[in-house]
Amino acid sequence: MVNRVQVVGRGRVGHAFAARLRERGVLVDDAAGVVVLCVPDRAIANAAAQVPRGPWVCHVSGGTPLSHLEPHERRFGLHPLQTFTKDRGAEQIDGAWGGVTAVTPEGREVGRALAGLLGLRAFDLADDRRAVYHAGAVMASNYMVTLYRAAARALATAGVPAEALIPLMTRTIENGFDLTGPLARGDLATVEAHLDALGRDLPDLEAMYRALAEVTES
Amino acid sequence: MVNRVQVVGRGRVGHAFAARLRERGVLVDDAAGVVVLCVPDRAIANAAAQVPRGPWVCHVSGGTPLSHLEPHERRFGLHPLQTFTKDRGAEQIDGAWGGVTAVTPEGREVGRALAGLLGLRAFDLADDRRAVYHAGAVMASNYMVTLYRAAARALATAGVPAEALIPLMTRTIENGFDLTGPLARGDLATVEAHLDALGRDLPDLEAMYRALAEVTES
Repeated sequence: MVNRVQVVGRGRVGHAFAARLRERGVLVDDAAGVVVLCVPDRAIANAAAQVPRGPWVCHVSGGTPLSHLEPHERRFGLHPLQTFTKDRGAEQIDGAWGGVTAVTPEGREVGRALAGLLGLRAFDLADDRRAVYHAGAVMASNYMVTLYRAAARALATAGVPAEALIPLMTRTIENGFDLTGPLARGDLATVEAHLDALGRDLPDLEAMYRALAEVTES
Repeated sequence: MVNRVQVVGRGRVGHAFAARLRERGVLVDDAAGVVVLCVPDRAIANAAAQVPRGPWVCHVSGGTPLSHLEPHERRFGLHPLQTFTKDRGAEQIDGAWGGVTAVTPEGREVGRALAGLLGLRAFDLADDRRAVYHAGAVMASNYMVTLYRAAARALATAGVPAEALIPLMTRTIENGFDLTGPLARGDLATVEAHLDALGRDLPDLEAMYRALAEVTES
């Protein structure tokens, strides 16, 4: 069933998925058993409508419900919990996890087989839990970018290069997200000093800093 | 001058610094040329007051002004831009950057020599830029922990293990903090769906998510 797989779209995910499936010798242009739609979220419904009935149809979106794949009954979702770049190839899939959303046991089986073929560690993802799951993925990845950019601006105002943050952030992961620093010590005077400094130098970051402090303390 | 260094305090930083200085054969218990105060921020002034006049006195705090080291005129600051654990040794210093704050050229020279001995990549940090610099360090490291914990809670409500976030967050750094996901695509409908889901399932995270979205979009 997953020995003939077609990938529609060559964006970041489509590029990596097609590379891996080509390596596996299962990438095809037609007569596929599984059609993987690697298109933007808002293009999924339209892309699905253009696939003739028959093969399994799958999307790779974190936030999009499976209903967007209708009228295909043989449908599932496979969301790679990873950030992709076109500068890398199939190897960027390795080690990542992938959420399989299915409506039937057979769909789950096909989804898990595709995940395995791609090199994703499969987990089950319920369609009605997607939004909160995907919010978590965005917080972990996209908002880490936001924090890095904000921190880089703060360092720049002190003449410190952004690359100085890399060993710090890498080690934060390596140390198992152990909380250190003023919030771990309950040092609210330092937190207030930070808010004063941001209010003066980078006022657009003050509300974000405060919101993060409140969640950290609670 | 830095061939006899005393470390006061064996917290996370003191533990690592003492281990490295011992390796270098310069760690001493008395008659030091440099006394490094690795104590909590609010204990620095008191610890400095207990050091007899003569040696260079240094603190390792990101946020504390050098005035806390008075009345020592031979004073400087050396802040390692790194998160430390007692589970590791001197090697956790390697690759990290260190901010040297001095009031005289000689102080800067001693500070840079100590940084080099420890294995830190030195940069100059002005005393009056500490607060905003340190706010940046907290955003990059401590608030990454906050994001991880928040994301782990979001995944848990969907039955997905937190460890699935590790490859995602690691790769986000490896890919140079390239922004992907709904905010990169201007997909505000997905952002709204996340806010709805958080409001329902994890309402204490909603304000933080919104504040981060606003900074990301701007």
